[in-house]
Amino acid sequence: MTNAETITDTEGQASGAQACVHRFGMDQPLQLDSGVKLAPVEIAYQTYGTLNADKSNAVLVCHALTGDQHAANRHPVTGKDGWWNRMVGPGRPIDTDRFFVICQNVIGGCSGTTGPTAINPATDKPYGLEFPVITIGDMVRAQAMLVEALGIEQLFCVAGGSMGGMQVLEWCASYPERVFSAMPIATAARHSAQNIAFHEVGRQAIMADPNWQAGAYDGSDAYPSKGLAVARMAAHITYLSEAALHRKFGRNLQDRDAVTYGFDADFQIESYLRYQGSTFVDRFDANSYLYITRAMDYFDLAADHARRMGCDTGTLADAFRGTETRFCVASFTSDWLYPTSESRQVVHALNAVAANVSFVEIESDKGHDAFLLDEPELHDTILGFIGASARARGL
Amino acid sequence: MTNAETITDTEGQASGAQACVHRFGMDQPLQLDSGVKLAPVEIAYQTYGTLNADKSNAVLVCHALTGDQHAANRHPVTGKDGWWNRMVGPGRPIDTDRFFVICQNVIGGCSGTTGPTAINPATDKPYGLEFPVITIGDMVRAQAMLVEALGIEQLFCVAGGSMGGMQVLEWCASYPERVFSAMPIATAARHSAQNIAFHEVGRQAIMADPNWQAGAYDGSDAYPSKGLAVARMAAHITYLSEAALHRKFGRNLQDRDAVTYGFDADFQIESYLRYQGSTFVDRFDANSYLYITRAMDYFDLAADHARRMGCDTGTLADAFRGTETRFCVASFTSDWLYPTSESRQVVHALNAVAANVSFVEIESDKGHDAFLLDEPELHDTILGFIGASARARGL
Repeated sequence: MTNAETITDTEGQASGAQACVHRFGMDQPLQLDSGVKLAPVEIAYQTYGTLNADKSNAVLVCHALTGDQHAANRHPVTGKDGWWNRMVGPGRPIDTDRFFVICQNVIGGCSGTTGPTAINPATDKPYGLEFPVITIGDMVRAQAMLVEALGIEQLFCVAGGSMGGMQVLEWCASYPERVFSAMPIATAARHSAQNIAFHEVGRQAIMADPNWQAGAYDGSDAYPSKGLAVARMAAHITYLSEAALHRKFGRNLQDRDAVTYGFDADFQIESYLRYQGSTFVDRFDANSYLYITRAMDYFDLAADHARRMGCDTGTLADAFRGTETRFCVASFTSDWLYPTSESRQVVHALNAVAANVSFVEIESDKGHDAFLLDEPELHDTILGFIGASARARGL
Repeated sequence: MTNAETITDTEGQASGAQACVHRFGMDQPLQLDSGVKLAPVEIAYQTYGTLNADKSNAVLVCHALTGDQHAANRHPVTGKDGWWNRMVGPGRPIDTDRFFVICQNVIGGCSGTTGPTAINPATDKPYGLEFPVITIGDMVRAQAMLVEALGIEQLFCVAGGSMGGMQVLEWCASYPERVFSAMPIATAARHSAQNIAFHEVGRQAIMADPNWQAGAYDGSDAYPSKGLAVARMAAHITYLSEAALHRKFGRNLQDRDAVTYGFDADFQIESYLRYQGSTFVDRFDANSYLYITRAMDYFDLAADHARRMGCDTGTLADAFRGTETRFCVASFTSDWLYPTSESRQVVHALNAVAANVSFVEIESDKGHDAFLLDEPELHDTILGFIGASARARGL
């Protein structure tokens, strides 16, 4: 492709992992839902495993709000395991000995893909708030461009949890013929008022930080660390269940025998939240947080699909009508951010169009974050679904 | 009482309402759980109705985190009805034609009672963070001092929701013989890890605001409005149920036909939250918010009672052993901040000591704030309990 180049860097990566950047030039703009044509666009992604000869074994893994392309390799900033190391790798449910796994940093992100930290060619400065507001649809359109550039006509599977699950659903509605099987996990087809509310608190926390400077901080001076940390803290509570917080922390005190009658972190839960906030700012960009939360809030698959079809209204079932994709929908009993009722709405819509869908509600007290954690039933669900789908695909 | 004076101001108050301030001088310090002796202490309170000759018809109403003494009169700052206008007044369940109702601003508050905005006699400046950290026990001890100063030996009833309910429970544990009947509503005997977590987010939001100035803002210069607004927004979400947010706001847009692809308040829920944040800062003090949330987080009635008894550990039942108070405990099905399970723990403890207790879980989709809203079943519950208790008391 003209103006497209792929840079590969395997240094420091786990075996079989490749860090890549694909550049779409000024003549290959990304059409955004807002009407803006974004160019140039760089997409940072990781691959694991080997693409087979007929390019039929590709699995696209989609990351969540604060995730990135480092699904199954050591994170270059934090040094920690990839966020889906449990699920992706040799001998894992998404087996990199059998499948070619792609995970890309979303448009608007801050881990190499073009986002608000990128240089705006019109000004030669970082975009900041000049970056166009993006949607889940835009993220998926960028992914589709990359998948096409890699010569893959159909993905064997698209999988992801939380915002990753939204991308899975968007893929199935926008490019049904390009998805053989799909696993939307712990997700929803649209953001609820409560979801929007929590995000708005996070955005207001960032914007309240004077170092945010209306998004024009540029790394050389002050950074809105405090606001971003507060946003992260508020969000982090929503990722855990009340039961998990009780089990892990309860009212345990932090390295002391009694409360101090002060505002230090007397309780372990306070210390834990402060740590979550402070480490997050080292690896995430405040403007990216604004853009990605906004994309999630805007997500309403039924309405988005209807609008693209030129209709005033439409049902969620309309978005999936005619699909031949095999679906596996999973939710967790203690997830109060994207509760099972949201997954059921997706399943009902799929049933209404006679789609091939299995659904499992996994008993867990770990809350929304369960999709990232050690949950044997999720492990077995993915293993079983991928195995059956691979047989159906002749892999 | 020496050095105690009562100032009464009825101007601008609803009929039968009296705004009062009681001052305890330097020789009458308030003993705090932290060990500090606080003096002087002013207590701002409202009364409604008339104390009878034998002083047996007094009802103490306790306010929640962001409440104040204006339970049943027009609020002097906001101009709105009192926060429990539905329950307190002539002909209401807590009938001011029959009962003498007292509601006082808690210690640490910012509506007239001594708190971090008060002048520290040691420095002649506002306390700010020099104010001692207070507890629910301290709030109740201050209330007991006032009740004693008013010559009331036993309160006919102590009632309140949320933090008000914590004070009710504390009264029953610390001064059992001085409470004839008690109504703890939508509350808990101790703060959970999740409760503490949400409060910690609010405190960090305030402390992240450079205008907070380590608590030393003094009104003449910058005020941490943005941080306090973010704290309020985060807390406000927890007061409402997901269902109530969906019913009231859903994904409705705010005065527009389509999203703007920007960071304005596109959604009604965003606009609503921003409004809640911005109006709150006009009537509440940021340091008070820190102190009162801290008091709630510290609350653990079983542990607190054991410590005061000189024991290492104790059960919640121990805190109520021997009680002759009549209890009515109420919770709401959709309250996820203080869920029914918390009320059940209180009821189990009361049952374990053979207390006189009735319990009702009220079906409501309004969330935690239901105790402040139009809930006919709560209305009828309070009416019935107060009526039966009054008969038992011979009123």
